[in-house]
Amino acid sequence: MRATASANSNIAIIKYWGQRDEKLVLPSNSSISFTMDGQLSTKTTVEFDRLLAKDGLVLDGAPAKDNETARVSAFLDLVRKKAGITARAKVVSSNTFPKSAGLASSASGFAALAAAASKAAGLDLGQKELSMLARRGSGSASRSIFGGCVEWRAGKKKDGTDCYAEQLSPPGKWRDLRNVIAISSMDEKKVGSAAGMKVSAKTSSLFAARLGAVEKRLALVRRAVRERDFEAMAPVIMQESDSMHAVMLDSWPPIVYLNETSFRIMRLVRELNESHGKYAAAYTFDAGPNAHVYTIARYAPEIRKALAELSGVMKIMECGIGEGVRFV
Amino acid sequence: MRATASANSNIAIIKYWGQRDEKLVLPSNSSISFTMDGQLSTKTTVEFDRLLAKDGLVLDGAPAKDNETARVSAFLDLVRKKAGITARAKVVSSNTFPKSAGLASSASGFAALAAAASKAAGLDLGQKELSMLARRGSGSASRSIFGGCVEWRAGKKKDGTDCYAEQLSPPGKWRDLRNVIAISSMDEKKVGSAAGMKVSAKTSSLFAARLGAVEKRLALVRRAVRERDFEAMAPVIMQESDSMHAVMLDSWPPIVYLNETSFRIMRLVRELNESHGKYAAAYTFDAGPNAHVYTIARYAPEIRKALAELSGVMKIMECGIGEGVRFV
Repeated sequence: MRATASANSNIAIIKYWGQRDEKLVLPSNSSISFTMDGQLSTKTTVEFDRLLAKDGLVLDGAPAKDNETARVSAFLDLVRKKAGITARAKVVSSNTFPKSAGLASSASGFAALAAAASKAAGLDLGQKELSMLARRGSGSASRSIFGGCVEWRAGKKKDGTDCYAEQLSPPGKWRDLRNVIAISSMDEKKVGSAAGMKVSAKTSSLFAARLGAVEKRLALVRRAVRERDFEAMAPVIMQESDSMHAVMLDSWPPIVYLNETSFRIMRLVRELNESHGKYAAAYTFDAGPNAHVYTIARYAPEIRKALAELSGVMKIMECGIGEGVRFV
Repeated sequence: MRATASANSNIAIIKYWGQRDEKLVLPSNSSISFTMDGQLSTKTTVEFDRLLAKDGLVLDGAPAKDNETARVSAFLDLVRKKAGITARAKVVSSNTFPKSAGLASSASGFAALAAAASKAAGLDLGQKELSMLARRGSGSASRSIFGGCVEWRAGKKKDGTDCYAEQLSPPGKWRDLRNVIAISSMDEKKVGSAAGMKVSAKTSSLFAARLGAVEKRLALVRRAVRERDFEAMAPVIMQESDSMHAVMLDSWPPIVYLNETSFRIMRLVRELNESHGKYAAAYTFDAGPNAHVYTIARYAPEIRKALAELSGVMKIMECGIGEGVRFV
């Protein structure tokens, strides 16, 4: 009744922003990400115990907040139902990156939790089932089940049985791909992703048009990943990020995650690409101001240096492409 | 062969962003603005003189830059052609607001120039013809021919003969309407509006969807203006501004005019409206970071105070609604 799993975060290049079903966590569009290496990782132990009166969650060494515990408990209910058990659980989870870094991702968290909880409950789930389970905790967690480049297919069915992630290419296939992360804020976001995407879908008059554009970008990115064609992938990554943040701005009330440093990084990456006469780097921003600059290993030192010199950049990390969820 | 005219700037609440014909300056959509009072005004004297070898332009007391003179000269060519004259002209133009305030608008400039130049050339143009002429200098100048609330109709004809501005309501109709302007940057913009809107129309996958949304907003705003219904107008003004800046961000390369202070003002206006339990103010941003906060006179002191206390705000102005172009 006890298991431990570890999962890495993933950073999407085709974004998840909008749901066709809130309860089942079914997205409006398919998304594509790279799974990061162990620098952005969550390790979680779940132990079901009939003697426990309620679920407990310890996060990075301290008791979690009530709302965090409640979210984990609701997720464990899904596992208990699936396994036909009723025991409460103790969950101990820790991240390899400081929670305050503004990178705290629910992706690695719910991927690790899905794996550990299902195993501890006696379930023996395949990767596809694990992806669907993790999805219920947090949409992007469905992608962290796999390593390398991963597509979370939106699917079409109402019950979500065709809505899960699949690996597009293994971690070893694109060894020199890097994500240089520039942290410009460690604040917690004011609008959570789930709430934000709901507002966008409901109020942005540009939301539907974005979905059409995403379909085209999905095809471009799938091909670029297959051929390891960074130059083809780079502009699409940036346009996709801009498009998502445009729809956020067009929402009512408007949602603004980017800050002045983010915009400065966008300009820096453009100038850097111009100076190379080709796409050496591509920025993408999630629901926050911190930049993820995808690049190729040989350009990484130059990009790190340029980012580090930029006013407003507090910390720089460099991630490679990593593995999917594993039991430890 | 000499005439002087004065025109006020206007601040659009339904924006002009995109052209269906670049040469004739025909917009992709109709737009609506309020003409400002004399605080944002340009006074221009044009004198045609057969002895002049070339056109000359004096701007705020100093010889203008070559590109500015060339733009005015190209506009005077249109007037000369219309009037059947060949004489070159001396143009002396001055603004009531400092050019460095980041408010320098081509709207008041080309409206005053169109009136002064056409009169000096012996033409006796009606307001509609004047509006079409001013349009050729700068699209938004077509609206500054009229005072009060003004709609520039996009028209449908290829030759632009149905593309001119009309007054929706006279300046005296909404006496307590105010525009509180918060200046947060006096830098010249890096991307000019004409160049920027061309990029958006060509590259933003959300551009077409925006045009559809604008049509709905035009209808809402026309009704709100007719009924002086500020509460109905306010959210539409803000959504329209957000929508334009969203399309700018979605363009490639992305166009970002807003700065951190702009976003701070957007939040401030939202909080202010929430504290009133109704729409007391509405922000709008042109192709620059400076905020135009439309409000009603009784809220203006509170809004001025709140804006003045905001970090990044350098200067505040308060404009009422003003008259159209006139000869002086």
